[in-house]
Amino acid sequence: MDWQTTSEDTVPSSVVTDRARRSMLGKPPATGAWREGDPVGGRRFVTIDDLALESGDVLTKPRIAYETFGERAADDSNVILLLHALTGDSHVIGDASAGHATAGWWTGIVGPGLAVDTDRWFVVAPNMLGGCQGSTGPASLDDSGREWGARFPHLTIRDQVEAQARFADALGIDRFAAVVGGSMGGMHALEWAVTFPDRVERLAALSTTSFTSADQIAQNIVQIEAIHMDPSFSGGDYYDAPDGDGPYRGLALARRMALLSYRSPDELNDRFGRSWQSELSPMVGQGRFAVASYLDFHGNKFTRRFDANSYITLARAMNSHDLGRDRGGVETALQRVTAKSLILGIDSDRLFPPDDQRRIAQSLRPSSRFAPDTDDHRAKTEASGAVMVASEFGHDGFLIENEYVGKYLRALLEA
Amino acid sequence: MDWQTTSEDTVPSSVVTDRARRSMLGKPPATGAWREGDPVGGRRFVTIDDLALESGDVLTKPRIAYETFGERAADDSNVILLLHALTGDSHVIGDASAGHATAGWWTGIVGPGLAVDTDRWFVVAPNMLGGCQGSTGPASLDDSGREWGARFPHLTIRDQVEAQARFADALGIDRFAAVVGGSMGGMHALEWAVTFPDRVERLAALSTTSFTSADQIAQNIVQIEAIHMDPSFSGGDYYDAPDGDGPYRGLALARRMALLSYRSPDELNDRFGRSWQSELSPMVGQGRFAVASYLDFHGNKFTRRFDANSYITLARAMNSHDLGRDRGGVETALQRVTAKSLILGIDSDRLFPPDDQRRIAQSLRPSSRFAPDTDDHRAKTEASGAVMVASEFGHDGFLIENEYVGKYLRALLEA
Repeated sequence: MDWQTTSEDTVPSSVVTDRARRSMLGKPPATGAWREGDPVGGRRFVTIDDLALESGDVLTKPRIAYETFGERAADDSNVILLLHALTGDSHVIGDASAGHATAGWWTGIVGPGLAVDTDRWFVVAPNMLGGCQGSTGPASLDDSGREWGARFPHLTIRDQVEAQARFADALGIDRFAAVVGGSMGGMHALEWAVTFPDRVERLAALSTTSFTSADQIAQNIVQIEAIHMDPSFSGGDYYDAPDGDGPYRGLALARRMALLSYRSPDELNDRFGRSWQSELSPMVGQGRFAVASYLDFHGNKFTRRFDANSYITLARAMNSHDLGRDRGGVETALQRVTAKSLILGIDSDRLFPPDDQRRIAQSLRPSSRFAPDTDDHRAKTEASGAVMVASEFGHDGFLIENEYVGKYLRALLEA
Repeated sequence: MDWQTTSEDTVPSSVVTDRARRSMLGKPPATGAWREGDPVGGRRFVTIDDLALESGDVLTKPRIAYETFGERAADDSNVILLLHALTGDSHVIGDASAGHATAGWWTGIVGPGLAVDTDRWFVVAPNMLGGCQGSTGPASLDDSGREWGARFPHLTIRDQVEAQARFADALGIDRFAAVVGGSMGGMHALEWAVTFPDRVERLAALSTTSFTSADQIAQNIVQIEAIHMDPSFSGGDYYDAPDGDGPYRGLALARRMALLSYRSPDELNDRFGRSWQSELSPMVGQGRFAVASYLDFHGNKFTRRFDANSYITLARAMNSHDLGRDRGGVETALQRVTAKSLILGIDSDRLFPPDDQRRIAQSLRPSSRFAPDTDDHRAKTEASGAVMVASEFGHDGFLIENEYVGKYLRALLEA
């Protein structure tokens, strides 16, 4: 089987079951995640066996959408599993053409000659289970041909990683040269390294945490409530609403709240200050501050590419994250990791603050820590073993600080 | 006139006009801010002249509700103006009886023998203009006897301080021994010291800022949007809704978002961690995290004492705050301050972070800075001149860290 991404072979028949093919022929979900007989860009699909979830529910034949970049080595020695964050997808690099909602989200890191060099590595990037860019989620059709909506089962990070492991099985990949993820993708990457130590040679967990804290849980909960409150949410069953109506306002508000936690105060203040959007002063009650326009724009834009039910499902999954659950605590769980592990954070991250990364690094066996000596101007390996990047970009820094993130990722892959 | 608080003289006829008396006889606002012929607790009222606002609108005969504590000296040398934060009111100390929505909000600081010793000082605490605990706001009746609702004019911090100055005039107070405020009340206090330097002998500005930053503006804007999105908001005209319906869900969401910015991540994490509220694990999709219950409880409770339109009006007023506007910048404006000035912050404040207080202190004339030598375990006077308290309570620390806040306030009042 040729694993290269080609436009001629976006849906290998050998890995797409009839059921999955049928569901792809249903009406497109609100998100436009896939289209009848014409999958988005280089997206492919794998359908896995029925998945027993932690909740006790069973998800029948879930589908995982994915893209690959680079060429798979005959001995499978060069395969990297790349796991996206909450609102990312499999489209890691490439432009927004061919139906993709966005351009690639990590174009400064992945590609020929870049830190994750696709001339050398074969990168596999699945859309997480519960998402809305091709993998089975609440906007997918259930057995009866209706969108799941509110009936979609509760997922945990472990459920999602189990689905990813089955996905890897389906692709015939036993062991990854590296599992790489940031933020929610970092939760998956950590869970991989703890659950399947033998399948993970290297681990890069960026801007993430070993368990979702009360503060992080709370941020997700208020965002979920914003969507619930939108009258167009209709209890989650909005897919048949007339005129394509949906809980866009609630989803946009959730996104605006999230954006505030993704950036640091300093960055927002330096960028916008108290500047106005128009000639009219906000002091007279009608003008708008520039920061308001920025948030509105990105909140609204987001609703054109993301499904509200997916957002809720994934935020709840994030809240389930606790490496230590039923494993004797986080420290004990992290002792299972045998991968060479880069734990990297951004010092201004207010959503997953530096202590979260320090806790991970400190709990690893010393032999598993990849803690390079550094004398970089804005990055240092701390005593904990975590690499901390000084940046005003906050949580989003792992997607922006390509020079430093790339340098340490490259070093990990060469180690 | 006797300015002591007595239950017999809660509404001195000499300062309440007929118009104001009529408006008090109207139907009670949604907030229960006042009651026909039976004002809440020791609350009194002053009606001031028509107020020309920065927006160009004129507010006719606004009313200011207030309480006083202690005894006014014959020479007026002991009068302290105490200015509450966003959701506070004039009820600084005392219990929740006699119709007060809450017990006093600063009982650890103000009272006989306490830092603001009411055996010595006469404390005057007005409810801010636009509020919903007795002062004129969107829930008040306009000239036609209808609640203002969405038609209530846009207010700025300067409008509110102008109203407070007229209120002081009405009480015959030329000069305050101290003007004290935290958070939004700190914005008012700073504006007082800049606008009326001759009327302010001492200034205490706690956990506040010289201008509302892009990040702070954004936090207010997403909270306003949460209220707007509630279908029961009805464009702000919800006072006649059947069954007393109102935008309680939106207001509760705004409050929950605000609470997250008021506390530090560490405090929330230490207090709640990942604990559950019930026997049911959140992992199965039905259980609730304890932090969710905490936020729900406080969000819902808040809606029983606060008016949604007031919340919007005050959040917008907060966004107007910029000491430097039309004054050649913040630094130049703060040079006008002649008051002995205590600028105090909490190191874990993520809403008004320490740099905000440092900027204020640094911009004051050295002769105005009250920067005591400290060797306290958890408080220090920084090089900037600001006093920084080490606390995990975040922004709310100024309401909680009574030992340190009290110590420095007392020192200021004795200086």
